[in-house]
Amino acid sequence: MSLDIATRVYNHGFRIDPIVRTLLDTDFYKFLMLQLIRAKSPDVRATFGLINRTKSVRLGEVIDEQELRDQLDHARTLRFQKNELIWLAGNTFYGVKQIFKPDFLDWLEDFQLPEYDLRRTEDGQYELLFEGLWAETTLWEVPALAIVSELRARAAMKGMSRFELDVLYAKAKAKLWGKIERLRVLAQEGPLKISDFGTRRRHGYLWQKWCVEALQEGLGDNFVGTSNVKMAMAAGLEAVGTNAHELPMVYAALAENDEALRDAPYQVLRDWQEMYDGNLLVMLPDTYGTTQFLRNAPDWVLNWKGLRPDSKPPIEGAEEAIAWWQLHGCDPREKLLVLSDGMDIDTIEEAARHFRGRVNLSIGWGTNVTNDFRHCAPDGKDDRLQAISLVCKVVSANGRPAVKLSDNANKATGPAEEIARYRRVFGHQDLMAQPLLV
Amino acid sequence: MSLDIATRVYNHGFRIDPIVRTLLDTDFYKFLMLQLIRAKSPDVRATFGLINRTKSVRLGEVIDEQELRDQLDHARTLRFQKNELIWLAGNTFYGVKQIFKPDFLDWLEDFQLPEYDLRRTEDGQYELLFEGLWAETTLWEVPALAIVSELRARAAMKGMSRFELDVLYAKAKAKLWGKIERLRVLAQEGPLKISDFGTRRRHGYLWQKWCVEALQEGLGDNFVGTSNVKMAMAAGLEAVGTNAHELPMVYAALAENDEALRDAPYQVLRDWQEMYDGNLLVMLPDTYGTTQFLRNAPDWVLNWKGLRPDSKPPIEGAEEAIAWWQLHGCDPREKLLVLSDGMDIDTIEEAARHFRGRVNLSIGWGTNVTNDFRHCAPDGKDDRLQAISLVCKVVSANGRPAVKLSDNANKATGPAEEIARYRRVFGHQDLMAQPLLV
Repeated sequence: MSLDIATRVYNHGFRIDPIVRTLLDTDFYKFLMLQLIRAKSPDVRATFGLINRTKSVRLGEVIDEQELRDQLDHARTLRFQKNELIWLAGNTFYGVKQIFKPDFLDWLEDFQLPEYDLRRTEDGQYELLFEGLWAETTLWEVPALAIVSELRARAAMKGMSRFELDVLYAKAKAKLWGKIERLRVLAQEGPLKISDFGTRRRHGYLWQKWCVEALQEGLGDNFVGTSNVKMAMAAGLEAVGTNAHELPMVYAALAENDEALRDAPYQVLRDWQEMYDGNLLVMLPDTYGTTQFLRNAPDWVLNWKGLRPDSKPPIEGAEEAIAWWQLHGCDPREKLLVLSDGMDIDTIEEAARHFRGRVNLSIGWGTNVTNDFRHCAPDGKDDRLQAISLVCKVVSANGRPAVKLSDNANKATGPAEEIARYRRVFGHQDLMAQPLLV
Repeated sequence: MSLDIATRVYNHGFRIDPIVRTLLDTDFYKFLMLQLIRAKSPDVRATFGLINRTKSVRLGEVIDEQELRDQLDHARTLRFQKNELIWLAGNTFYGVKQIFKPDFLDWLEDFQLPEYDLRRTEDGQYELLFEGLWAETTLWEVPALAIVSELRARAAMKGMSRFELDVLYAKAKAKLWGKIERLRVLAQEGPLKISDFGTRRRHGYLWQKWCVEALQEGLGDNFVGTSNVKMAMAAGLEAVGTNAHELPMVYAALAENDEALRDAPYQVLRDWQEMYDGNLLVMLPDTYGTTQFLRNAPDWVLNWKGLRPDSKPPIEGAEEAIAWWQLHGCDPREKLLVLSDGMDIDTIEEAARHFRGRVNLSIGWGTNVTNDFRHCAPDGKDDRLQAISLVCKVVSANGRPAVKLSDNANKATGPAEEIARYRRVFGHQDLMAQPLLV
């Protein structure tokens, strides 16, 4: 009805319609990790690479290379804004004031995303690499993923009429709200903590914003936050998330011998607990296999608040953590489990009911909240809008290959001979292959 | 995103947000009937009354009386606009040019909706009566219904947040599109003609507009028109509909004796075919019972193109018409059946498949296209948005009571002694009671 001509005309003038419009449009854990990297590994160089695990989707044919370059270039023009840095400095995160130190914030002030290296590969994919200081390349992870993810969605929608788009979003809204209604029922039964982890593989920025509003409106206090810093700032929500595989992967790559390699995942935890405390002490145990990680963990690891199983079936991974705590005399009801690997409404319900009363459970809901458009396209052509398994992982540190084994053999990354060496060092009897969830 | 402050501020200035904004926002058949009334019964006085058959919904408690008065008053300020009259004069309706004669259009130029008489009744309903010349009161039917219907929907939505409204409409859109997808499948199987008959009991004007666009977009040529004259004009669609019960009811009320009464429904047809032709010759046989109407019909009635069963179960009513045509040697494949009584996706599918190849079928889809919000409210409180059986019927003509028997005893209207007399004259062995559909 109401058309704002000025806004419309202003939009005409955009060279592109930018996907990432602020450096805060990223996951909160990047800042926690970055502060650690700046403190402990300021000179380490790390290369990140974008990997599309869904090989059947040939991104090089779906996304226009120039559009991708334009979006990446635009992200490089961004700087942290004064008001954003003031908020990072003044806001309370995880109940802690001034979690980010002045020298770190000063350093952020001049931050710019480093250069990227893009080429199309012969199998129809893109090779997208970020080389440079770890403290700089690390911040590419989320915007790079969000850009590729949204460009793919835009390409899928290019031929749709205004009306088809209207139906598409109506269906997607109805679908998400249907899930939220089920969560409301679940919340009646007992404690429920849901947060949005869906920035990286979102359908689009505006859509994620809608999803976050929907979760806020529908779940109230059961929606405990978003990993997206910009949205947390704008909506007055908690920014959530702690750490990722890149920490043990880089520490491991830099290890000088097998003993140091075996210790690397625990060294990450030692460094982390020097800097952070309380609910921020959530470990990610699966980089080189969860079972060996727990079996070989030093006793002080039991003091950590929580654990985020990430590559076993969620209930199995969580049960393993509970059994480990119990074996060592810890009460799981005082511990926190964060489930965030490919969760969706069915698995959320299942996990919440399974663990009720036994442990504090928190669900990091990702791609299936911010990019579930299955059966939503009015022409029935849903495949182009179906989320894919896209990751941006560290591939090397100071020129040495980075390796992940994971609990799921399909998620292992690194050169074959290095994977073999890591398997020898960490043992590989606990690994199995699982289908990849988005 | 884009907020047009000027539009927003302009809207602040409205005393009310008008529901009916043009006299063309009505059903096309009113104009066809009105031209006949003007020609044959210019001095007849007829009173129309609004009746809520869904007694469980106490409209007098749901809708604010002053708001209702404001909307009715606003409708009375409307006049036909020059561009509207030019379109009525110049457009082709049902393949006929200049269907509306210059003297009729001249008369419309000065038309104003006559006064209304509103009071709240003790059982929590409104009594809303329109007294005056038939040629004036008749045009109240559709705007009065649309106003009450939309005011009820607005009342139901009053407490909803912007977000709840967003979800509500997303769900309603997804729901309608789901029906349209089923109709697309149906259209693959054979001929399908759907038109929108949903003005009178619509959720709201803007919503009907969206529904009409959805039908256009989704069904293409299988969507053959809308009864709403304004929307037909704006969207370049066919305006559809022919005649209603008010014609035989007024003719019957004015009949001087039983013989004239028995002939009244056929006199309507005689007068109609003097003025109209071709596909406009669609009879409505159920006012005093379909079975007796067909049994006693003069032979020339067989020449009419089509028939609109309106109060028997649709397949039963349509089969009766087909049997009647066949009994008299007419090929039903050259005839038209219009089904428009409470149709929804299931009954549309059933009827289309049942009659395929046997008769030309056209579906007038009403309340279940423009007002189906069942299971759409995000708070689960759907009852306030569920459509009700609201009608605006002629109750007397020149001071004599108007009577309808219908094929469904639950739809009979008129004083008991008059119903008894009509039953005696027309016979009542064929009537039965059916649940009321919206």
